[in-house]
Amino acid sequence: MNQQKSLAESILMAIQSVVGEGPAVLHEPSFKGNEWQYVKECLDSTFVSSVGKYVDRFESEIADFTGAGYAVAVVNGTAALHVALLLAGVQKGDEVLVPALTFVATANAVTYCGATPHFVDSEALAFGIDADKLRTYLQTHTEQRNGQCINRSSECVIRAIVPMHTFGHPVDIDALLSLARDFNLVLVEDAAESLGSTYQNKHTGTFGAMGILSFNGNKVITTGGGGAILTNDANIARKAKHLTTTAKVPDSWEFVHDQVGYNYRMPNLNAALGCAQLEELSSLLKAKRDLFDSYDKAFSQIDGISLVAEPANCCSNYWLQTLRLDDDKASSRDAILEVTNNAGVMTRPAWRLLNRLSPFKDCPQMDLTTSELLTRCLINIPSSANLVTKST
Amino acid sequence: MNQQKSLAESILMAIQSVVGEGPAVLHEPSFKGNEWQYVKECLDSTFVSSVGKYVDRFESEIADFTGAGYAVAVVNGTAALHVALLLAGVQKGDEVLVPALTFVATANAVTYCGATPHFVDSEALAFGIDADKLRTYLQTHTEQRNGQCINRSSECVIRAIVPMHTFGHPVDIDALLSLARDFNLVLVEDAAESLGSTYQNKHTGTFGAMGILSFNGNKVITTGGGGAILTNDANIARKAKHLTTTAKVPDSWEFVHDQVGYNYRMPNLNAALGCAQLEELSSLLKAKRDLFDSYDKAFSQIDGISLVAEPANCCSNYWLQTLRLDDDKASSRDAILEVTNNAGVMTRPAWRLLNRLSPFKDCPQMDLTTSELLTRCLINIPSSANLVTKST
Repeated sequence: MNQQKSLAESILMAIQSVVGEGPAVLHEPSFKGNEWQYVKECLDSTFVSSVGKYVDRFESEIADFTGAGYAVAVVNGTAALHVALLLAGVQKGDEVLVPALTFVATANAVTYCGATPHFVDSEALAFGIDADKLRTYLQTHTEQRNGQCINRSSECVIRAIVPMHTFGHPVDIDALLSLARDFNLVLVEDAAESLGSTYQNKHTGTFGAMGILSFNGNKVITTGGGGAILTNDANIARKAKHLTTTAKVPDSWEFVHDQVGYNYRMPNLNAALGCAQLEELSSLLKAKRDLFDSYDKAFSQIDGISLVAEPANCCSNYWLQTLRLDDDKASSRDAILEVTNNAGVMTRPAWRLLNRLSPFKDCPQMDLTTSELLTRCLINIPSSANLVTKST
Repeated sequence: MNQQKSLAESILMAIQSVVGEGPAVLHEPSFKGNEWQYVKECLDSTFVSSVGKYVDRFESEIADFTGAGYAVAVVNGTAALHVALLLAGVQKGDEVLVPALTFVATANAVTYCGATPHFVDSEALAFGIDADKLRTYLQTHTEQRNGQCINRSSECVIRAIVPMHTFGHPVDIDALLSLARDFNLVLVEDAAESLGSTYQNKHTGTFGAMGILSFNGNKVITTGGGGAILTNDANIARKAKHLTTTAKVPDSWEFVHDQVGYNYRMPNLNAALGCAQLEELSSLLKAKRDLFDSYDKAFSQIDGISLVAEPANCCSNYWLQTLRLDDDKASSRDAILEVTNNAGVMTRPAWRLLNRLSPFKDCPQMDLTTSELLTRCLINIPSSANLVTKST
């Protein structure tokens, strides 16, 4: 117990050596650009709601920044994923491969389609889906019928796979694209956490049939609440816009809706904030990278832990800085969480594995040994871009 | 044809005599109070997202204004209705009674629960569900089994009824409450259009098990995008908050979610706008009532049409001012829409009946004669609160 306490105290001191003695939250937004100006312009125009120039501009600038052909702004990342899965063809009775180690929204969105999440394991380096392990699993547990991947045990179609770029670190997307091709799965990237992260110089979220982003208040940039669907396919983009705007068909005055649609559009007020935030994005990413460097130095002297760095050939946005405890130090996790949070330094563990939550306990799953280990060994520490100024 | 044109020209002139010669949209927001101050305070606090004092304040003030025990702020009216129906116990395979004459969101929300809308007719005075006609229909077409209302034809449970207060005019809610009691239906009020409208001095949305409001940009007050669930039941309010915030269970640091939840919370940024708008609500309602009076004078000399007034014993918010063509003038509707819109005066017909939209064409329905007539005879005309200043 003393040893645990001592490790916890060392970690607290290292964090405070970087971010100062005051309270530090996990991630807070930074509004140092045109946020006021654009939001005020939006209010003055009275176009605060479903129509307005900021939504169009935000979509265009998100597409430019990510290199996606199209971006469709929506009310949050969960809504983006729901619609992306619908457009991937996910339907009632299907299964969708999702990591067990992710935020609950990934699995929730699958259930909104009437489908079932099928939980898969992560690899230990960047915490994304382990492509090799999954390939072996699918070879054993599925078969191809009429170009569809069938779960032999449930007899359900496995329609799609949703890799997530955990804490902003790009998953090994090439291996997963190859797997998706081989097993006839539609790949939808959950890039909710990885705006600004690239894999071999290409932005995360632009590899699959679709990708999704989140602009929640705890993300690299925020629109209050918000998200986006990314795609390179004009037809998918058109359908995404249609589905997220109540599926209303253009008409002089008649209300015609040609399918069950959703009220998922991002309000112009939130997009105005987003446009200003996008202007700040490069400097925010720089600051977060600098914060990693400072933490890296501070933690280098502490045995039993390591600071998680971006994978090779990738550039991470370092959304959430992450400590990884050595496997034999996993039992110190709760002491570390307690000591830091009690001192006003907010830290938190990785998510409880989704297969361990009551709504998903009966869902299909592969062996999750690595995810189980990771959930005991990962701790997120204060990661706001503005923390770096305190350290320099 | 000339007669139609002449009626259309008379209507255009009457509208312009009230709102002036310039272009007039159907409904635009008015920001003349503390909108900028509160939004700026919100930006300065950096609490623009899922947590913040404005959300709590907005919920408390909405509850105060409506007299509801509790209000839960959400991302829009559709989300509010979805969750209200879930909490009403609507489940897969159920049917829900909804008017055919309403915005598509009412029926969409039913389908999100896996249930089927069952379309019912409206009465000709305030355009809400016709309680008498529905009672006769249910007596013939349903039976009670184990305290549930069963559709004899489909064998499905009819779980709930969703009256809507059309264009802000209160439906005959007492008759519908009595019907809901007699047939074991949960009553959920769609008060999306009726913030500020009362029935016998009690606010719409507070009669049923739950009610919902919308703060979309075209409503009496706006939060950009937004909605609320109203209820007098503390337990329902607690569940509504839980379901709309990803069903996360309070914990020091663990992510535990005990059911499939939704990312439906209203961002604090939008709530800040809402708090300022609520301060303006009384004067906006006054202005909209004055606009009705001005229109009422202007239209009194035109034969073949009438301006829709609030029902007896009710106070309407006059959200959308509405012209009703005499039945024998229905064929003039499109000419009126064309002449007015061409002149920059925005008008629109009532919604296409939902049973006539392709996604709902196979849903159960009763005789809809009155709704069919109304959809041919109703025209909404410019209704913004700020128009009245132009007329005085």
